[in-house]
Amino acid sequence: MSLHILVTNDDGIDAPGLLALQKALQEVGEVTVFAPDHNWSAAGHTKTMHKPLRVNQTMLPDGTLAYTSTGAPSDCVALVVLGILDHQPDLVVSGINQGANVGHDITYSGTVAAAMEAVIFGIPAISISLDSYESEDFAYAARFAARLVKLVLERGLPPNTFLNVNVPAVPEEEIAGVKITRLGKRVYSDKLVERQDPRGRNYYWIGGEPPSGVPEEGTDIWALANSYVSVTPLRLDMTDHQMMEELRRWELET
Amino acid sequence: MSLHILVTNDDGIDAPGLLALQKALQEVGEVTVFAPDHNWSAAGHTKTMHKPLRVNQTMLPDGTLAYTSTGAPSDCVALVVLGILDHQPDLVVSGINQGANVGHDITYSGTVAAAMEAVIFGIPAISISLDSYESEDFAYAARFAARLVKLVLERGLPPNTFLNVNVPAVPEEEIAGVKITRLGKRVYSDKLVERQDPRGRNYYWIGGEPPSGVPEEGTDIWALANSYVSVTPLRLDMTDHQMMEELRRWELET
Repeated sequence: MSLHILVTNDDGIDAPGLLALQKALQEVGEVTVFAPDHNWSAAGHTKTMHKPLRVNQTMLPDGTLAYTSTGAPSDCVALVVLGILDHQPDLVVSGINQGANVGHDITYSGTVAAAMEAVIFGIPAISISLDSYESEDFAYAARFAARLVKLVLERGLPPNTFLNVNVPAVPEEEIAGVKITRLGKRVYSDKLVERQDPRGRNYYWIGGEPPSGVPEEGTDIWALANSYVSVTPLRLDMTDHQMMEELRRWELET
Repeated sequence: MSLHILVTNDDGIDAPGLLALQKALQEVGEVTVFAPDHNWSAAGHTKTMHKPLRVNQTMLPDGTLAYTSTGAPSDCVALVVLGILDHQPDLVVSGINQGANVGHDITYSGTVAAAMEAVIFGIPAISISLDSYESEDFAYAARFAARLVKLVLERGLPPNTFLNVNVPAVPEEEIAGVKITRLGKRVYSDKLVERQDPRGRNYYWIGGEPPSGVPEEGTDIWALANSYVSVTPLRLDMTDHQMMEELRRWELET
């Protein structure tokens, strides 16, 4: 009878956004937290097959039992779905990530990858992020997650589609509303930083400023820039159907 | 005047598919090989920001200078585009991967992630895989890559779109032709394998059989099953536009 919600993230088990999400979702169902034991930001969609994974029990600050693994967020989802606990999740919620996941970010994001992994296993999923690297005020985002989870459980999601949510980091009374959005265009400002180690050998950081974005109306980036919560439905099928037609006119056969 | 092609992969610098690709593309332009120094299969789209990267020069078996990094395939692309060499690539080709990358694989694949990284930087890209974990006969696939590269350079690709190619591992005379395909549906057979270390503590492998797939006509999986080369155009915008309409009818505002 009880509804099982699996909560994971990519900032790791100690992240405040994970705790806020777990608390809010307890009002909707039975919540299990199974998260990486360290930060996996920008780790992409990983399946750890070339090395074994450790799994440990731990306690959240509020005393709740939780699980960690040495794997990525998507590994945590796979471990649960493959049966490491005594039940299967009815829904996977990943977050609340510190920092937005919009535009091209979703191809790098471990938060989003956990939702992808769930969808591949046929389980509905939501990824949720707060648009700030500093704010630890996850209260509104967590409540929004709980409301969205209820709606998803009532209405369902199509197979292969999940919801990616971004919440502006403004005081609650300044939130302008909720927009259903498409993915925007990120502008990355990555810079190569060259350093020398104490033995004179070069090493490199991918550094630079955090990414900005093109705030085109209707996109997730525009929604955040205008203090709206963005809800972007994403599908795993990345086929470019328009380009299929064009390619049929190329002379690909020898 | 000279055309720069960056070749990378996720099987690592020593993989035979990388060498075959590099040789074939030398007929089309100036090829630089910059690949991971170890295998990154199923590592997803990674941006290594929390640790520094090392870069080394090496020599391919044919005596060509090549570069390796400790990062993922997508990091190799980023390092080159961010300026670690004295030129920018006009095109990125990733592969030839040992094992197909079809259906949902593309969300995990390091081979595909390298192409995604290029496209995010505005550089056209192709990912290419051979449908076998054992065969080292990359000759036909490499020649097909060279022909496709020429066509891409002549005709261009839309921004945000790249080509994902899979070549059946059959003798060349048995190849039935080339199909423009959409992504199919993978069926994963992952199994959780529990072991104990010498100290009696559990650890886990994500094991099981290699994935199979639903050979629905018109998909990449169907093409390979019928000995066709599949060319699937993929776009980074994963927005589910149909679901956007549906979501607008949900009561998301409080």
